[in-house]
Amino acid sequence: MTDTTGKPGETGADALCDTLLANDVNVCFANPGTSEMHFVAALDRKQQMRCVLGLFEGVVTGAADGYARMTGRPAATLLHTGPGLANSLANMHNARRAFSPMVNVVGDHAAYHLPYDAALTSDIESLARPMSHFVRRIAGPADVSPATAEAVTAAMRAPGGVSTLILPADSAWGAAPQTAPAKARLRTPTAADPDRIAAAADTLRSGGRTVILMTGQALRAAPLATAQAIADKTGARIMAQQANARIERGAGRANVDRIPYPVDQAIAALKDVDNIILVGATSPVIFFAYPDKPSTPVPDGCKVTVLADPGDDLPAALEALAETLGAVPGPISPAPAIPDLATGKLTPETIAITVGHMLPENAIICDESITSGRDFFRFTHDAAPHDWLNLTGGAIGVGLPLSVGAAIACPDRKVVNLQADGSAMYTNQALWTMAREQLDICVVIFANQRYAILHGELKGVGAGVAGENARRILDFDAPGLDFVQLAGSMGVEAARAETAEQFTDLFAKAMKTRGPFLIEAMI
Amino acid sequence: MTDTTGKPGETGADALCDTLLANDVNVCFANPGTSEMHFVAALDRKQQMRCVLGLFEGVVTGAADGYARMTGRPAATLLHTGPGLANSLANMHNARRAFSPMVNVVGDHAAYHLPYDAALTSDIESLARPMSHFVRRIAGPADVSPATAEAVTAAMRAPGGVSTLILPADSAWGAAPQTAPAKARLRTPTAADPDRIAAAADTLRSGGRTVILMTGQALRAAPLATAQAIADKTGARIMAQQANARIERGAGRANVDRIPYPVDQAIAALKDVDNIILVGATSPVIFFAYPDKPSTPVPDGCKVTVLADPGDDLPAALEALAETLGAVPGPISPAPAIPDLATGKLTPETIAITVGHMLPENAIICDESITSGRDFFRFTHDAAPHDWLNLTGGAIGVGLPLSVGAAIACPDRKVVNLQADGSAMYTNQALWTMAREQLDICVVIFANQRYAILHGELKGVGAGVAGENARRILDFDAPGLDFVQLAGSMGVEAARAETAEQFTDLFAKAMKTRGPFLIEAMI
Repeated sequence: MTDTTGKPGETGADALCDTLLANDVNVCFANPGTSEMHFVAALDRKQQMRCVLGLFEGVVTGAADGYARMTGRPAATLLHTGPGLANSLANMHNARRAFSPMVNVVGDHAAYHLPYDAALTSDIESLARPMSHFVRRIAGPADVSPATAEAVTAAMRAPGGVSTLILPADSAWGAAPQTAPAKARLRTPTAADPDRIAAAADTLRSGGRTVILMTGQALRAAPLATAQAIADKTGARIMAQQANARIERGAGRANVDRIPYPVDQAIAALKDVDNIILVGATSPVIFFAYPDKPSTPVPDGCKVTVLADPGDDLPAALEALAETLGAVPGPISPAPAIPDLATGKLTPETIAITVGHMLPENAIICDESITSGRDFFRFTHDAAPHDWLNLTGGAIGVGLPLSVGAAIACPDRKVVNLQADGSAMYTNQALWTMAREQLDICVVIFANQRYAILHGELKGVGAGVAGENARRILDFDAPGLDFVQLAGSMGVEAARAETAEQFTDLFAKAMKTRGPFLIEAMI
Repeated sequence: MTDTTGKPGETGADALCDTLLANDVNVCFANPGTSEMHFVAALDRKQQMRCVLGLFEGVVTGAADGYARMTGRPAATLLHTGPGLANSLANMHNARRAFSPMVNVVGDHAAYHLPYDAALTSDIESLARPMSHFVRRIAGPADVSPATAEAVTAAMRAPGGVSTLILPADSAWGAAPQTAPAKARLRTPTAADPDRIAAAADTLRSGGRTVILMTGQALRAAPLATAQAIADKTGARIMAQQANARIERGAGRANVDRIPYPVDQAIAALKDVDNIILVGATSPVIFFAYPDKPSTPVPDGCKVTVLADPGDDLPAALEALAETLGAVPGPISPAPAIPDLATGKLTPETIAITVGHMLPENAIICDESITSGRDFFRFTHDAAPHDWLNLTGGAIGVGLPLSVGAAIACPDRKVVNLQADGSAMYTNQALWTMAREQLDICVVIFANQRYAILHGELKGVGAGVAGENARRILDFDAPGLDFVQLAGSMGVEAARAETAEQFTDLFAKAMKTRGPFLIEAMI
């Protein structure tokens, strides 16, 4: 280790960039500060690294999450000391729950400066650990490349993880050894366990009512078709977790419904089930506890077994199970037709119908519609084939940034962001990045001017109907938010829809033109 | 402890509200979620508690900070689980550095639900500790009132601190003992140490060049006058820390300059100083480390001694020192006159001159002007008496929320927010709260469309001039932000100033009318 200042091109920051690039990490979502200036200077020397600025750190990590879900590879993020990391944590939490690979670089003070407790000093490790699978403080310029490779290794370990590197400023500006960048050790996912496959086959042959509960890679089109074949052969039902990083769905693909969010609906969905076979999923849990309601919708006496853990090769496990059972994918039975385009009053349902009809092939839906979107699956099973990305960790404010990342990952695909208004406000700065990068995203804001979910939850926990103080906390209708102006303030074209026809016209226009466009749907 | 659901009015959440109110905590800045619904229901039963909604948690803690700086008392905040806390941490960090009393209530899952690791579960303690002086997880409904009183006690311990209470949902909804609310144990600040006073007097009599470095309560008008008297008597110089929670200044008050932020200016300010006497302040530290520059501007051989610790009674310590030295406050020498109102090109300097001339008596300035405002003190020493609130922790995004809290604390005083554009974006949601509560705030946005400070720092760390990738990270001029539209989207009236005359006209209008108004100053 040395604290000699490195020459341009030979600093720790250069080694960091070189190691990221050598490991196919070539997008950096950034919101830097002073302690990261040498990293910024190094980025100037590496034009292969695509730098994308977010005007708030929640945009940065949410975008990295969207990018990872669509590419299977990590982006780097660049964050500034403890407070910058703190601002990014909510969406890092969502990424952690999505098992999205991600490599965060958090700049910190020079190591020798830390004991002075300058104003921006804080315990970065304590902040990072709850939302990271891997945390490592870089020990000096010579440690930059090995630490970075280790972070990529951890991020790429199946099913994917969040790595956080802490980069002291003197590790960034110090002279680094001029050696080849360290390489991550990439491993293939663990093969399916033959005993588990045999046990699952026995369960499925037993004649009980069985749900095959899936997430992760099991929700891509091919493994879903395999799972559907198993279900068809055995009378089982396939389901997806309540929240999932990505589902490939739409016309010609196997239909899969999610476990509902509301506690009573979740319990109803699993009523009378004898067996649940987990494929990368966890045993179902209610999102929040409620007085006198159970913590899980799994009925008493239901046997929960594991076919494959999250880090296993889920498609291979399903294939092996299908082979054991002699299940062969047949034609997918067509989904129920989408109702005719609606007119008149604009509602979440009429919006869903329009989206179902007009979604272009290969679109990506980033869904943070919260209450408004709970019924959306029903109207879009038969839409053109598309990917559906959920809010995975319950930390609101992911939809707009997730769309940014998905659009950067897949520049040739239309991204549609179904977005609750309250949640949109948390990371509204993402609109600016959409404009800056001219991303092909249509944002649909469900403008009900309240935390509608919380009005429901207030009743749900038995706390009654909102009174004066509660309405002051749960409603934001006075003054109303104007998302058309908000989008315009950051350079995104926008329009308001008050009726179903207006929405259909605007959505049709947005599907035909490229670039960011926001529709404020007054529901 | 019991997990019986309490009747309305007799829950743990009711006990929380009652205990806060019994300890004079009667403002709650809130951004709740499902796990806090019983607290929200309890708030409905306590109309004495003023509830203020922020559409993002950074607004909530920043507002509580501003409220505390102006009242000396804590507000409560209401935050939702780990991610909601995470969103609030950057401004909690600033509050911690300001020693602002604050009582955060973080809702969590019911205790029995935690082992299920539902999506929103995270290690709240690990997140809270770095930015809190006191962290406590409530153990059950019977623990709510004692824990809350303890949190207030910790928050009010001089010089003030950040308390974070973790409230499991079942502690909120469970039946609480129907006893009188627990009371905080308030203590007066520690008296000045006679030995330190004698030592400081000796130092001041020794004839060396001495700086009396102050922060906290020492920067109120009366102790500043005392400090000035000491300086006049002994030839010492009074200075304030680089960043301070609150300074009372303006015409007729003792002039105090801060240690400059830029490293070379900070070193120059303390050049040739033989002694520094700390009055609640810490020994000066450079904000960031730079290659080949020291971590502190204190010259070699300079003796740093302590007159009073942050938790001591700072005004009393200064008075005792003045008495020892026989220093009596005399007339304050008038500050340099403010230059005439400028015309033509709009610059930070012309803005400062206008503000200096037109600031109404008793105004509160919330300063997050970053680079644009470094020279503002010079033009406002002779303005009408006012309070000046700084960014204390370096975590940007405090200015707008701080203004919200100051305006709620002091409804009869005009608040002027001097606000950098990049920093404003982090917590732009505060504009909505200004409109909702019709707060008397004039926001001045310094619109230079770049992280100007980072261009300077890029040079400062020796990393050179920004190239293609660096400009993509440091500039946000393409597209430009439109703060007039942004304010309008949240219900705040706004206008743009392109010239000094336009700015003066708009600022004059804003000073004469009540309610929120934003001026986008195109510098």
